[in-house]
Amino acid sequence: MKIAIQGIKGSFHEIAAKQFFGNGIDLVECMTFTEIPQLLKNNQVDFAIMAIENSIAGAILPNYALIDEYDLSIEGEVYLNIHHHLMGLKGQNLQDIKEVWSHPMAILQCRKFFRNHPNIKLIEEKDTAEVAQRIQKENIKGVAAIASKSAANLFDLEVIEDDIQTIKNNSTRFFILKKEKNNNINPLKNKASLKFITKHETGSLAEVLDIFAKHEISLTKIQSLPIIDKQWSYAFFIDLIYDDNVLYNNALHLIQKKVTHVKVLGEYERNTEKL
Amino acid sequence: MKIAIQGIKGSFHEIAAKQFFGNGIDLVECMTFTEIPQLLKNNQVDFAIMAIENSIAGAILPNYALIDEYDLSIEGEVYLNIHHHLMGLKGQNLQDIKEVWSHPMAILQCRKFFRNHPNIKLIEEKDTAEVAQRIQKENIKGVAAIASKSAANLFDLEVIEDDIQTIKNNSTRFFILKKEKNNNINPLKNKASLKFITKHETGSLAEVLDIFAKHEISLTKIQSLPIIDKQWSYAFFIDLIYDDNVLYNNALHLIQKKVTHVKVLGEYERNTEKL
Repeated sequence: MKIAIQGIKGSFHEIAAKQFFGNGIDLVECMTFTEIPQLLKNNQVDFAIMAIENSIAGAILPNYALIDEYDLSIEGEVYLNIHHHLMGLKGQNLQDIKEVWSHPMAILQCRKFFRNHPNIKLIEEKDTAEVAQRIQKENIKGVAAIASKSAANLFDLEVIEDDIQTIKNNSTRFFILKKEKNNNINPLKNKASLKFITKHETGSLAEVLDIFAKHEISLTKIQSLPIIDKQWSYAFFIDLIYDDNVLYNNALHLIQKKVTHVKVLGEYERNTEKL
Repeated sequence: MKIAIQGIKGSFHEIAAKQFFGNGIDLVECMTFTEIPQLLKNNQVDFAIMAIENSIAGAILPNYALIDEYDLSIEGEVYLNIHHHLMGLKGQNLQDIKEVWSHPMAILQCRKFFRNHPNIKLIEEKDTAEVAQRIQKENIKGVAAIASKSAANLFDLEVIEDDIQTIKNNSTRFFILKKEKNNNINPLKNKASLKFITKHETGSLAEVLDIFAKHEISLTKIQSLPIIDKQWSYAFFIDLIYDDNVLYNNALHLIQKKVTHVKVLGEYERNTEKL
């Protein structure tokens, strides 16, 4: 099975992929999120893993836009507790480090640590683990990567500082994506991600949420997005959990009359290992 | 009147400050958002301006956390249509530029442009305008800033590329913040920002939104935030617009019985110049 990930082996996306699919997978490494839809559409991979939100940085809105634009299907989710470690060549210590090269999300999640070390220059790179690999390959002194313990082991680097993320309980949610929905009935499905656009009327969102509540469906996430170029129009991304598939389908049928647009981005089994 | 802004003169925060307060203000420049609450609390400034969300990058969650933690009061809002321009020393052109130094939010909003120019190294800095100033002061060749036209004029730099933001309609919303709420009745107030935590029951959010709808109050934003360390508990940040102050206060009174926690982050006059 071929799985596209953002980043290289040793990245958090690889850890998420292994948690979901186990070890017998063939990873296709991507340097940007935008390569992922194309690989799926061209059948070059079976699935892809994409980070979608983080407890510190919030939702990664551009990734929601990619899923929506390319009509990808969300087939599952993984929650990972993210531990960021500062690492460099063996023998290097914090005073030796002049620059840190890392992914902007990783830098953002370690903001407080770097505020206390203002002399370290922060340089944006495309992948956390790729920097770790490069430091080792090219024997780069004075530069540190922010990456996982598995990257430190894989690339034989020294962990200079442990757990430098601002909030110790830093959880990232990843989606497992497929090219398109299949309509197989999977009795294990109990979570859904939807996008909808409400009518321009006071109370239109309340009506939609009321239908879900009456069908014993709970929200686990809601996020409004202003629709660019359409003043006072809002799209909503929501995640729902349900136990009864019939009630869920009835609710979905009923809300279609209440909104101007609704799209199921995916129906999948909820990940209960949330930390 | 002393106003704290993130960044220096020439920054988008200065433009937002002038749009709200006019020209007769005394700006206090801050290099990070986290300095702002302290300045307000110590009465070193009367107001502060803080970016809170952007149509491309989404909400700046750490800033919501600062407002909440320090019990600041939101006194107003400004929407600015953000135009990012790439600028360097006079005579420099795009081929000369090896590095861009800028704020991570500005880099994020210009992601597509830099994807097409992968040879330019992206380096994180604290403020967009401060980089423009430094390039000019220290005569730095080969480096460009991402900043406003007013920064290019102020620091006598050449605009190398116009409008490099990914979405041409790139709007940022700023809050005007005060140390604490005053309870003066201002008949112009017609918008509110609230935080609340719902009971752990299916339909609890629908009930709250239903109360607002029945009181002719519209939502203009909703965002759920998982409460760290409390599985399945959610806080919501919402913005409401209303025309009748009595109905608004009645609704606020009623929802207190439906939620475990509610906090008014601010009541203010809505900015109608949204682009």
